[in-house]
Amino acid sequence: MEGIGNDYIYVDGIHQEVPMDAEFISRISNRHFGIGGDGMIVILKSDQYDFKMRMFNLDGSEGMMCGNGIRCFAKFCYDHHLTDKKVLNIETKAGLRIVELIFDGDEVVGAKVDMQEPILNCKDIPVIFDQEKMINEKVMIGDQEYALTAVSMGNPHVITYVDSLDFDIETIGKQFEHHQIFPESVNTEFVEVINDHYLKMRVWERGSGETMACGTGACAVMYASYLNGYCKEKATVELLGGKLEIELQEGHIFMTGPATTVFEGKIKI
Amino acid sequence: MEGIGNDYIYVDGIHQEVPMDAEFISRISNRHFGIGGDGMIVILKSDQYDFKMRMFNLDGSEGMMCGNGIRCFAKFCYDHHLTDKKVLNIETKAGLRIVELIFDGDEVVGAKVDMQEPILNCKDIPVIFDQEKMINEKVMIGDQEYALTAVSMGNPHVITYVDSLDFDIETIGKQFEHHQIFPESVNTEFVEVINDHYLKMRVWERGSGETMACGTGACAVMYASYLNGYCKEKATVELLGGKLEIELQEGHIFMTGPATTVFEGKIKI
Repeated sequence: MEGIGNDYIYVDGIHQEVPMDAEFISRISNRHFGIGGDGMIVILKSDQYDFKMRMFNLDGSEGMMCGNGIRCFAKFCYDHHLTDKKVLNIETKAGLRIVELIFDGDEVVGAKVDMQEPILNCKDIPVIFDQEKMINEKVMIGDQEYALTAVSMGNPHVITYVDSLDFDIETIGKQFEHHQIFPESVNTEFVEVINDHYLKMRVWERGSGETMACGTGACAVMYASYLNGYCKEKATVELLGGKLEIELQEGHIFMTGPATTVFEGKIKI
Repeated sequence: MEGIGNDYIYVDGIHQEVPMDAEFISRISNRHFGIGGDGMIVILKSDQYDFKMRMFNLDGSEGMMCGNGIRCFAKFCYDHHLTDKKVLNIETKAGLRIVELIFDGDEVVGAKVDMQEPILNCKDIPVIFDQEKMINEKVMIGDQEYALTAVSMGNPHVITYVDSLDFDIETIGKQFEHHQIFPESVNTEFVEVINDHYLKMRVWERGSGETMACGTGACAVMYASYLNGYCKEKATVELLGGKLEIELQEGHIFMTGPATTVFEGKIKI
């Protein structure tokens, strides 16, 4: 399944035993020798909520949350008749996420996710900085000065604004990723403001490099842009893989976007 | 299915209608939005032989032949009970190929393919050169001189020998790919001779760049190395994705290597 190009292998872990070791995950995620994907997401029972989501990266490491992944997760649960609810409470490593399915006729085509409250406190993101928050603060990265805004959506993001998205992201992205002010590294979003309700971005994810889409990153971008006066409470965020609608309501960030089943299959392991 | 990392989507075109337009092929071959693969291979009936193979690249263009693909093609036919023959005559755009299945117990694990006679005539490869053949001839590519051997295995290859495979293949590969002496462009193999029965190579494929494996390229490398006195009639060729055994018998090149089913599935189109 994929959400704006962020593709995972989704496996029902309720009706079968699913191996979750790094060797298995990286083997099946390999795009030449395996099924191929950005990683594996497993559907599990939850003690407290409707379902529990566990997500694993390409290298087998476990992720906290995946904004694009959780939309597909909810569609999987509904499409496979694991529930008939249209609003799902999903347990993730980053806490509870509430997901509302979006239908086109009978078909689930997307979802709206309550991504909770963004975190601005530098210590919690974490960012090493001498003030409580980092909003539009000038910092030297490599040999250039950038105005930075730091936001956590359960994972650390830093946002900077550029005149054009046509630049060498690999060199600059790595400078951010390994900079000493980010003790747990960081996901960096480069944003071009088109107008007060349309933002374009590219993302450099820690450990992964440039990716087609980052759901939490799009939320962080909308919120940083709101704080900096670049957009109102609602904006379309365009990523390489597609578009997300991000909205701020009563302190929570809501993300709306597509969820697509590409194919279904069986693998002998 | 994959053969030393060269992975295609294999579709039974005998029992169902298969779209073969560029839009469909590039959509399902896309590694983020589709099933993902180096392209699509379709199993069809042949008027003359057991089966007919059509292979399409990522961009939807049709290829002549694929050495790694035809091993998987033969395994597909046997595994899906389209035949009970263990030696298959397969029609390709490059002509007939005879494929002998290799078993481990009841399971097809690989195949040995008669890759026919290599072609050395410059006009037929094609290479623009003032002699009939190009075997160990010094040619300027970019600002460096290379000793080149040109071979066609139904598609054009040029082979050169290097001391180490650790080099910037992108820059040099493109110089070969676009050089004026190759009117239909060329696949370039860079070879490190380990000993007289073991060759290591990297390949830069025309239109694709560096790939994990090229079956026809491995055959061309073995034959060029035989002509240049670097190996005997039989050699192991190690590519990034794995190993192939290449043998010269009565003027024909035989390629032996693995064929693996990764997963099977259904897609709604």
